[in-house]
Amino acid sequence: MAILFKNVTAVTMDPAQPVLKDVFVAVEGTKIASVGTERPAGDFDRVVDCDGKVMMPGFVNAHTHVPMTLMRGYGGGCDLQTWLHDYIFPAEAKLDDRCVAAGAALGLAEMIASGTTCIADMYMNTETVAKTVLEAGISANLACGAVYFGDPADFSPATCNDCANHIRLYENWHGAGDGQLLVDASIHAEYTSCPPVWQWVADFAQKHNLRMHVHVSETASEHVKCIEKYSETPASLLDRYGVWQNGGIAAHCVCLSGGDAELLAKRGVTAVHNPVSNLKLMSGVAPLFFLRECGMGVALGTDGVASNNSHNIFEEMKVAALTQNWNFGEENGQLSAADILAMATVNGAKALGRDTGVIAPGKIADLILVDFTAPNLFPCHDIMENLVYSAAPANVAMNMARGKIIYENGVFLTLDLERILSEVKDYSLPHIFG
Amino acid sequence: MAILFKNVTAVTMDPAQPVLKDVFVAVEGTKIASVGTERPAGDFDRVVDCDGKVMMPGFVNAHTHVPMTLMRGYGGGCDLQTWLHDYIFPAEAKLDDRCVAAGAALGLAEMIASGTTCIADMYMNTETVAKTVLEAGISANLACGAVYFGDPADFSPATCNDCANHIRLYENWHGAGDGQLLVDASIHAEYTSCPPVWQWVADFAQKHNLRMHVHVSETASEHVKCIEKYSETPASLLDRYGVWQNGGIAAHCVCLSGGDAELLAKRGVTAVHNPVSNLKLMSGVAPLFFLRECGMGVALGTDGVASNNSHNIFEEMKVAALTQNWNFGEENGQLSAADILAMATVNGAKALGRDTGVIAPGKIADLILVDFTAPNLFPCHDIMENLVYSAAPANVAMNMARGKIIYENGVFLTLDLERILSEVKDYSLPHIFG
Repeated sequence: MAILFKNVTAVTMDPAQPVLKDVFVAVEGTKIASVGTERPAGDFDRVVDCDGKVMMPGFVNAHTHVPMTLMRGYGGGCDLQTWLHDYIFPAEAKLDDRCVAAGAALGLAEMIASGTTCIADMYMNTETVAKTVLEAGISANLACGAVYFGDPADFSPATCNDCANHIRLYENWHGAGDGQLLVDASIHAEYTSCPPVWQWVADFAQKHNLRMHVHVSETASEHVKCIEKYSETPASLLDRYGVWQNGGIAAHCVCLSGGDAELLAKRGVTAVHNPVSNLKLMSGVAPLFFLRECGMGVALGTDGVASNNSHNIFEEMKVAALTQNWNFGEENGQLSAADILAMATVNGAKALGRDTGVIAPGKIADLILVDFTAPNLFPCHDIMENLVYSAAPANVAMNMARGKIIYENGVFLTLDLERILSEVKDYSLPHIFG
Repeated sequence: MAILFKNVTAVTMDPAQPVLKDVFVAVEGTKIASVGTERPAGDFDRVVDCDGKVMMPGFVNAHTHVPMTLMRGYGGGCDLQTWLHDYIFPAEAKLDDRCVAAGAALGLAEMIASGTTCIADMYMNTETVAKTVLEAGISANLACGAVYFGDPADFSPATCNDCANHIRLYENWHGAGDGQLLVDASIHAEYTSCPPVWQWVADFAQKHNLRMHVHVSETASEHVKCIEKYSETPASLLDRYGVWQNGGIAAHCVCLSGGDAELLAKRGVTAVHNPVSNLKLMSGVAPLFFLRECGMGVALGTDGVASNNSHNIFEEMKVAALTQNWNFGEENGQLSAADILAMATVNGAKALGRDTGVIAPGKIADLILVDFTAPNLFPCHDIMENLVYSAAPANVAMNMARGKIIYENGVFLTLDLERILSEVKDYSLPHIFG
């Protein structure tokens, strides 16, 4: 399949030429074949006129739990621990594969319609998530987030479910769909597991050359308790077991201590900022200027919609910009719209080890068209300002993931929305919530 | 015109019965005629099936400057004073009636599509705004925001433009459209005028029984400078001239001093919170728990989109909830979704002196239908949580203002969107920005 986009205004995320006007972008197979002012030679299966629209890389939602879409708004108004123990864990205990598939498909529909083309997801029943994402067509780094509440002395890879889950997930799905799916090694968090688990997961990552995905210092309470228990911060403690050796994702990083960010930067770990979830659960505002100064890449995620309650990266960008600039901007200068867009695209791509997030020849063709004739995006004095501060999911006119158009003008081309809504309503909700 | 809504799930904003299910809502003329479980007798011009949708009162955007839509994103990244003096004031100096009409119409289109049915607007060329709002169909309290930079000793009502503007606006537009338009007396702000202006505007309000609309203590700098100059806070200073005698709107209230909120509460003045604009201009986070404890009503506004950059009350609700609960929630308990919805509807209606913002018989029929089958609003564990934390402008399926359907399924029924976009593009932008 070869598709030519003409009359393109593109926000490329390439600092050398951040905005291109009146260019052609050709896509062949899964990749961007050319970007330029001359119409490329050759036949195209389709020519898309982009007049009035802006092309940009699809969003990378670098930390989410997509099946939790079933719990949208459930337990609203609680702090993180109450919300987890009184609402989320009891609901999750009732999940089965069918629920997970339905919840994941519903969340993916929301993500696709709002311009996301790549995610890093951490959840249980991860093989089911894998199948669902593969059908939906976006790219995903999948993680099964090892949890272990047993006595550390009793830990054995042979009896720990999440070790078996890691192995199955890796063997069955790593690289599936010609690289559409990648598997990350994953520890849910320091406080939901223990040293032998960390050692096993780190060794597994080393053996298979996998990146890591962990919740790190999301709340002050979790951070302080770890120091009390181990005399060390979560980031530093996990490092002693080799957890960060291949880089990856430290989700949240709201409460890192002094050396943590420098250590994580040295290991090539990206901080994934989830501003809406962190405010909703009253966890705080991650210090992005500080993390960047320490050399960390910063990407964006929605977290699960149970604590958001949307999969809307436009909103995540705006809330990130507003809260960072107000909380830390006076002494640091402001994060620019370009900084924020990088967090939502290319920085996430790097965190996931993917050659996307930039509109340039050779990159994976993950891109979206945003309708700038909509009243909420007009007039446009600065494209990047409008994308960060004014754009909304409804402005996404097209979502192309890996060279395939998966959503256009409100129509899902890989998902059956009616079937998904029925499945959630008729099976998942009664099954989980009675 | 009589319209019957059937199969209605309604968030009423009536605390006695906050959510009604499976009811009929009848509208006759500009008012809600009945709300009940029995189908009302009589013939209806149209019956609207609300299955899958939620009805709620239309939003009241209680502080905005709608013609500034022309300056969306203009001067992004500056603090309030730089932004005003280097970008906004020079652009505003070039505005003419035709620009104001086009900018107002564009902003009204965005507002109507996102569920707003009533606004409090403060801007220049206010008679042009009046004409435009009257055609668009929503209700508005209009204010011309008196500004006077001359020597106070030289002030004379006969030579002050904004005195003449007050008189013309009141005489030509107060009560127009059977109450669709109301005129508020208005001082732009303490720091943009002086005592003789305050006295004149206060006397004008007293004479014609008008409410007041003023920017109050938006930034710490403005608040402190007023104390340095007059040994008194802006709220208290203006009160000495009788400015608050008929109640009205104190926009922003980010930096009130101790007695200010109690004084304004006693005068029946509502604080209008503009959380996005206050963060964008790095002004701060208004202390809503404190204002409420002092007895003030709190409503929501977008401010002008030049500092927002949207007219999206859904977003304003979510950002208000997230920032209040994070900044002040720990010691105060959280603002509930119901509290936030009240700020966006009935509290704004009260601030504007209007009998709307509640779905009940006899109220003005300002109401919207929100499509809860959209993936981003599904599932729904709690209607109010979903409205505050998950809903978006694109979920607005219908906007009815004063009993008339003005927007339905993406189509504007009172505005010609194509004509508005052309007028902005072909006339206003070249005229202002060259």
